[in-house]
Amino acid sequence: MARQERALRTRQAVLEAAAEVFADRGYEAATITEILDRAGVTKGALYFHFPSKEDLARDVLEHAVTEPPPEQLIKLQSFVDTGLILAHRLPREPLLRGAARIAADQSAQRFFGLPWPVWVEHTAAVLAAAKEQGEVLPHVDPVLTAQTMVGAFTGTQLFSEAADGMADLERRTALLYELILPGIAAPGVLGRLDTSPERGARLVEESGREAEETAGIAEIDEIDGAAETV
Amino acid sequence: MARQERALRTRQAVLEAAAEVFADRGYEAATITEILDRAGVTKGALYFHFPSKEDLARDVLEHAVTEPPPEQLIKLQSFVDTGLILAHRLPREPLLRGAARIAADQSAQRFFGLPWPVWVEHTAAVLAAAKEQGEVLPHVDPVLTAQTMVGAFTGTQLFSEAADGMADLERRTALLYELILPGIAAPGVLGRLDTSPERGARLVEESGREAEETAGIAEIDEIDGAAETV
Repeated sequence: MARQERALRTRQAVLEAAAEVFADRGYEAATITEILDRAGVTKGALYFHFPSKEDLARDVLEHAVTEPPPEQLIKLQSFVDTGLILAHRLPREPLLRGAARIAADQSAQRFFGLPWPVWVEHTAAVLAAAKEQGEVLPHVDPVLTAQTMVGAFTGTQLFSEAADGMADLERRTALLYELILPGIAAPGVLGRLDTSPERGARLVEESGREAEETAGIAEIDEIDGAAETV
Repeated sequence: MARQERALRTRQAVLEAAAEVFADRGYEAATITEILDRAGVTKGALYFHFPSKEDLARDVLEHAVTEPPPEQLIKLQSFVDTGLILAHRLPREPLLRGAARIAADQSAQRFFGLPWPVWVEHTAAVLAAAKEQGEVLPHVDPVLTAQTMVGAFTGTQLFSEAADGMADLERRTALLYELILPGIAAPGVLGRLDTSPERGARLVEESGREAEETAGIAEIDEIDGAAETV
């Protein structure tokens, strides 16, 4: 393994361990000692990549930005997919869980709500595109609606965490969309939206398969290339 | 001032000071020293009423239960009023602010979400009554909808706190109801619901005036009674 690759792996291991500790304990109570224990790296290695706990938190928040959901003919479906995918991934991915915890943690005032503006901006853009296509009721304001949705989703996640450790987050998120969509979607569009709780898992699986196929083609290309140059 | 009355005032002063400190710092970071400073009472007085910080937190949570909104012909209006009144009172009342903070604070695991079941139960009962009166769409489940609303409101409040220190909570809450009601209310009822952001303030003021009038009548009764017994 090349030195650079090893360094990247160490960095990633520390980041994921930190996210887990942030998710379990919150920012204030998280200690470097516990992060070291969980990552299985030396103190020197950790501080080489992250000079402070604050740097770790910022990096967790930065890496928790998820890629946009696959393009859909109906733009409003992307609005739904963003939440359903997040609801599927959140309980399963420490980085996301850690970021969500830090973002909603008022004790970590300097991070409180930090990733929300990015998320609002993305959601508002999707809603604006949906509005341009006539999918949205005329009185709907994309920015205000995006803010409401980001807030409502955050609360749904907190409620789900308290009620059942997020085991039911996908179903709760689907229900939130079912309640909120009749106030957003044009009548003709409403019936064509898929809000089933299983949709998030399916989309994540599909995008994983696509990524593998692309990687597969790249490998074949490399082998072909290698064969040619031999 | 009678000794008992003085004790009650001290107790209330400590409770409100504790709520303020919990609201500003969160449960973990709150210290008895700061609560004492703010309440202006002796350590002995505080510990007489509350043996520990945990007792203070439990009492703040218990006292934050708000009375139900005034009865309305349309039951679904009470569903709206609960949130609009809370949105008006939360930024203005330390006890409520402190309780909301503790309830959404995962670092205070043993309190996390604690008042939510009571709130869900109350909301579910209102929705069930609304359903019985035919005000609600047939597929609406009162308990699941109540859980979604409590979660969504909690998130709206956190978002509002991060965005503008809850200055805009009433408007944001009104918007949440406007988005969510078309997914709940029967079409004939929807147009008759008042979701204006100022409604919470008006209802609080009215119930305050009523309480004063009742107190006024009680005082007159007392004077009359006194006059009679002289």
